[in-house]
Formats: sequence, C-alpha cells, structure tokens
Amino acid sequence: MTDDFLPNPALLPAGLRDLLPPDAEIEARSIEAMMDCFAGHGYQRVRPPLVEFEHNLLAGSGAAVSEQTFRLMDPDSQRMLGLRADTTPQVARIANTRLAQSPRPLRLSYAEHCLRVRGSQLAPDRQISQAGIELIGSDAVEADAEIVLAGAEALAVLGLTEVSFDLTLPTMAAMLLDSAGLPPDRRALLAHALDRKDAAAVTALGGSMAATLTRLLLAAGEATPALAALSEVDLPAEARVLADRLAAVVDAIRARAPALRLTVDPLEFRGIRYHTGPCVTVYALGHQQELGRGGRYISGEREPATGLTLFPDVILEAARAPALRPRLYLPAGTDAKLAARFRAEGYATVAALGDEVIDIAAEARRLLCSHLLTDGAAAPLS
Amino acid sequence: MTDDFLPNPALLPAGLRDLLPPDAEIEARSIEAMMDCFAGHGYQRVRPPLVEFEHNLLAGSGAAVSEQTFRLMDPDSQRMLGLRADTTPQVARIANTRLAQSPRPLRLSYAEHCLRVRGSQLAPDRQISQAGIELIGSDAVEADAEIVLAGAEALAVLGLTEVSFDLTLPTMAAMLLDSAGLPPDRRALLAHALDRKDAAAVTALGGSMAATLTRLLLAAGEATPALAALSEVDLPAEARVLADRLAAVVDAIRARAPALRLTVDPLEFRGIRYHTGPCVTVYALGHQQELGRGGRYISGEREPATGLTLFPDVILEAARAPALRPRLYLPAGTDAKLAARFRAEGYATVAALGDEVIDIAAEARRLLCSHLLTDGAAAPLS
Repeated sequence: MTDDFLPNPALLPAGLRDLLPPDAEIEARSIEAMMDCFAGHGYQRVRPPLVEFEHNLLAGSGAAVSEQTFRLMDPDSQRMLGLRADTTPQVARIANTRLAQSPRPLRLSYAEHCLRVRGSQLAPDRQISQAGIELIGSDAVEADAEIVLAGAEALAVLGLTEVSFDLTLPTMAAMLLDSAGLPPDRRALLAHALDRKDAAAVTALGGSMAATLTRLLLAAGEATPALAALSEVDLPAEARVLADRLAAVVDAIRARAPALRLTVDPLEFRGIRYHTGPCVTVYALGHQQELGRGGRYISGEREPATGLTLFPDVILEAARAPALRPRLYLPAGTDAKLAARFRAEGYATVAALGDEVIDIAAEARRLLCSHLLTDGAAAPLS
Repeated sequence: MTDDFLPNPALLPAGLRDLLPPDAEIEARSIEAMMDCFAGHGYQRVRPPLVEFEHNLLAGSGAAVSEQTFRLMDPDSQRMLGLRADTTPQVARIANTRLAQSPRPLRLSYAEHCLRVRGSQLAPDRQISQAGIELIGSDAVEADAEIVLAGAEALAVLGLTEVSFDLTLPTMAAMLLDSAGLPPDRRALLAHALDRKDAAAVTALGGSMAATLTRLLLAAGEATPALAALSEVDLPAEARVLADRLAAVVDAIRARAPALRLTVDPLEFRGIRYHTGPCVTVYALGHQQELGRGGRYISGEREPATGLTLFPDVILEAARAPALRPRLYLPAGTDAKLAARFRAEGYATVAALGDEVIDIAAEARRLLCSHLLTDGAAAPLS
C-alpha cells in the first residue's frame, strides 16, 4: 500500500504549513505592529477579497502572476475565480475603481495571505503573508523615498535595524540592450551575461554598449561610491534620466535617514514584473531571503504609483521574538475580579476547570504556566 | 453585447467585497483586540493554512461543511485541495496531530478568513471572518462556562455589552423524538413543528412525548425562569442529564458574571452541525444576525471539546467604531524627527511629496487631514 491508501491527517500539501504557538501570535502581533507604523505615515488599510473574477484579478499588473494563480469555478456566477497570488494588483484595482474619487496621492496599506501554485527552491512556501503599502498618484522622488523610509521604520519596530535596502533600475538593462541593436540570439546571450554579472562575457558580447555595460556592472554596491561611478558613465539620454532619478531617491532617503544602509545595483533586473522605475529589495544582514520588495509601477494603466511589500514569514525568522504574556495558573474557585486584574496587568490566566487537583504547583507546571496564584499574588514557578 | 463582453473591473462575485478605509482598519484592530482578550485567558494562537488536502479538511467535524467548500486542483501533488469554509475542524486537526502531546486541557485561538460556496439570505457574505477559541480535552461544566465568559469579555472590549447568550441543547430534540417512537413521516412532521415552535402541532403530533415537548417549548427564554420550568419537566433519564448540565453551565457562568444576559432554549436545534452538548449563540440586542456561535463537540473523534467562534463582520456592524488616528498634514521640508514625534503621539502624518503647494491649509483639507503642522504644533483644521 502507498500513502494514497493511508492518508495521514497531519500531512499538508507541499509549501503549506500550520503556524503553532507561539509563532502564530508572534506573526499576528508583528504584522499589526508594522501596519500600525504604516498607519502612522497616513496609509489607510484596505481588505480585498480572497478570490475575484479571474478576468479582473489578472488584468493589468495582475497578469504578471497569472501562472502562479489558483483558479476555481464559482457555482453562483458560473465563472472562473482566481485566488490571489499577490495583493498589489487588487489594491491597484480598488484605487482605480472604488477609490477613484479619493484625493491623490492615495496612501493604502494591506496585510493579506496569498496562495501560489508553486514555491521556489529558495522560498518553498506557497501560502505567503504580505504586509504592504501603495502610494498612488505621485511621481515624486519623495514618494519613492517615503516607501523606503516607512518600510525601514516598520522593520525597526520589530527590532530589525540591521537591514539593507538595495535600490535597482530594472528597466535600465533592457533599455541599454535595445540601444545595442543586437540580433535576438546575441541579445539573449548578453542579457544572460548581465544577469550572471559576467563582466568578461558582457565585454565580449556587448557590441557598441560593451564599455557602458561593463562600467555599469562596476557601479554597484554601497550607494555613495556606486552612484559616484554611475554619474560618470556615458549613458543614452533615457538611461541617464533613470540613473539621475536613482541618485535623487538616494539623496531624499539620506536627508531623512542618514544612517540607513543603502546599496544600488543599476543593472539588476531579476524578479521584475510590472515595475517601471526605481525598485527596492530589502535584506536583513546575514539572511539570504528577501524581507520585502517593491518599486515604481503604473496603477490602473494610468496613474504613477510606488509601493513596498514586506514578507512577514521571512521577517519573523530574522527578527527577535517579542515577549509574550507570562502564564498564571488560577486554582479552582479563584475570584473572578482578581483574575481579571491579573489579565489587565498582562498575565495570561489559565483557570482550573473544576478538576481534582492534588498538587497545584505540579498542575500549573504541567500546563506550562510560569506563575501560580498564591495568597492573591502571582508567584513565579521555578 | 452582454456583461460577458464588457467586464466591469469593479464587479466582484456575489457575496465578496472590498473593505475600504476606515472599515478595514477597524476590523483588523477589533479582531486583534478580541484575540488579545482570548490570549489573556490562556488561549494560544494557531494559524492553519488556507487550503489543505480535501480528504483531511473534510474529515471528522469538517464533513459538516463539505457542501460549502470550494475545491481546487493542486498541480504539485495532483490531488484535490479544499479551501476552508470553517476554521474549527482545522484547529481540531492541529490539536489532534501536531499538538497531540501538548498538555490538556488545550486552549487554542485563531482569527482567519473562510470562503463558502454559497451565502444565505440572512448572511449573504461568502468570505467570512472568524475569530474563535477552542478548549480541548475537558468535559467540565467550567469549560462550557469559560468559553461564554471569554466571549462576553472579548465583545465587551469592543464596547458590546448589550449582548445575549442563548444556550441550547441541540441533541435534546432528537433524543426526545427517538423516545416518541414515531413512524418516520410523522417524526419529520413533528421535527418541523418543533423547529417552528408550533405548540398546537407539537401537541397533535407528539404522541407519548406530546406533553413533555409542549412543556419544553415553554421552558425557553430568560435563563432563571426557563431553567425553573425545565427542572419540573418529566424527562427520560438521558435528556434529564442534558437538562441538568445546562442548568449547571448557567450556574457556573452566573457565579463569575452575574449580570450577563442569558437565555435558554432547550429544544432549539437549528444550525446544529457537529455539536454534542450545550451550545451557545450570541446576539447583540436589536440586531438579528448572530455575533457568534459555538458549543460542545468531540475533537478528533476522541476528545471532549468546546469552542466559540465570533463573526467580526457582524460584530463590527453592532459595535461602536474605535477612534482612529487624527491626520496631520506635514508641509514639504518638515523635519523628520519632528514628524516622528507626532507619529509617536498618535497622529497619522501625511507628508507633502515635494509638490508645488500654494495654499497649504487647502491642500491639507483636500487630503482629508484633520490637523496641519503650524509652527511646530498640530493645529486643528476647521
């Protein structure tokens, strides 16, 4: 017999998992702390539904996650629904329809779960938490800066200050590849070489752009020296506008948060989906997985917008765990008002349920309590 | 042309909706306030995944929501998944598998979204928020009382004190119908009459149970007189145990919360799914929809358990809205530290994004701000 005939009730599909105590509470509290930080910056929360008509869910920027989207049949409408794989397109839809008349710039926030058809080797989870902000209707450099600053502050609330924001220009590489005027197969080889950061191959394949591309590969790393190098590269006019924009965004961030660790990588274009301008990826020092990513896009095919999505699942692996309530065992017959007072003081009270208990301290320990109510006080258990 | 050819991007499937500002934030904060209250009573949070293997999701108590469960195909495992329509069965699964070795009684809590294939006329929403608690591994009267008391406290945190807990015994009616020994068609008519609370039909159809059933119909309403009436009804032994249990639960609740409004309805059995003992439905006075429901069941086919699920969507219609952050407009060039101070004081700051603004107060009003930063202070806008 195989597993098909012996179903295991504990078995979950690959990439899906149960969050157990205390992780589930830590996650929920951390998400709300980040959302509260976003609310402090004027971002107002929206909550789109888990599923929508496939046609709407995958329109516009949603098309980028079409292959990752689960479909289901709606017996009510007899139409196909999609289960969201990303929240940003839904927020853009809300901005573009129900909140079309709200004043711009429009600041929206969200904290949602998404489901994806496949996990990746680096990020095997198929259910993903997203906590994010979208700033819709402004093309200002200050808008790009604000999403980085609000993101940094939200991470700092969780104790994550050893973070790095990597700023990229994902449309830059394509722009320069176009300028090189190469035949398609050689262009593909060059793009692959850029992706690998293979300077020798870029020099060999780059044609008229070889020198520019090679210099740009070197204009990466810590923001100040990289931007100095970038400013000296001879770029086509369109690419120069992009590069200057990146420098202006870094200046605007530095003006408000001089100590924030910033790197730039002007030729990075992996993970590009619907982005049109400066983008950002957030890392915790010493951790490989991204804490979040975002950048500039067009909302509803007409409005300039930028946003940042943080990934709570990854963040919680890097953040310090918050202190949870100490657990206080209440023997049978404890006065209800006394119990309420301890809860108000921050204890989790664990009440006896009329069971026969001989050794109260042993019972409290068995129930994983840290304290025992003794003579009206919370006595720590050794 | 029909709507099929002119898709409306704002159109959502029936029973699904966007929560907009300020509702989405109010909902999230209210849920966390209730969860914090549950944590105060020692309930530890779990977070099951949105989807599971259909076979596991619909096992045990999950079978009750099988018809309401959306299915989807998992390309990874090539097996059918179910999208949860109820969270309690998932929590029971966790208790029974991953937390099988955790000490009993086990107190777990959750706050999740569920999706249902169909809405009802009274409750058309197909995406449902659930915030609940499960108390697994205790058959004590105090356990039944605790879930009511914790639920009442969670609602009180949201300002909902004008609530009523209606206690029922959903297995009582079937027990008495069995005792009546009626042919199936007459039994069905009698059950229908009980459901309609039609005393004349119950008397006519009740056979040997007519007098008992009619007296039980009258033993409903405010708990004290109803339980007094119930205590005098002559019941079969098994039904008497149930009735006495209900009285004991009311006593245990009254001992801790004498002012809590309690009603009983021993013959009520609508909405029964997997319940085996005393159950409860929560109402806000003057509101028709249920704020929550719960009761006693068997977890994992072997452990006595009880639980309560609150419905935040309904609760928020009845609760007073909490105060949200006042919005403070920050003109361009505002000092970053000053802005942070106002956020720490509880303002939402709305920063100018380097736009050309001539009339700052008008711009602040346009952005729906309540305050304007003037000479380093938050000046209210008329």
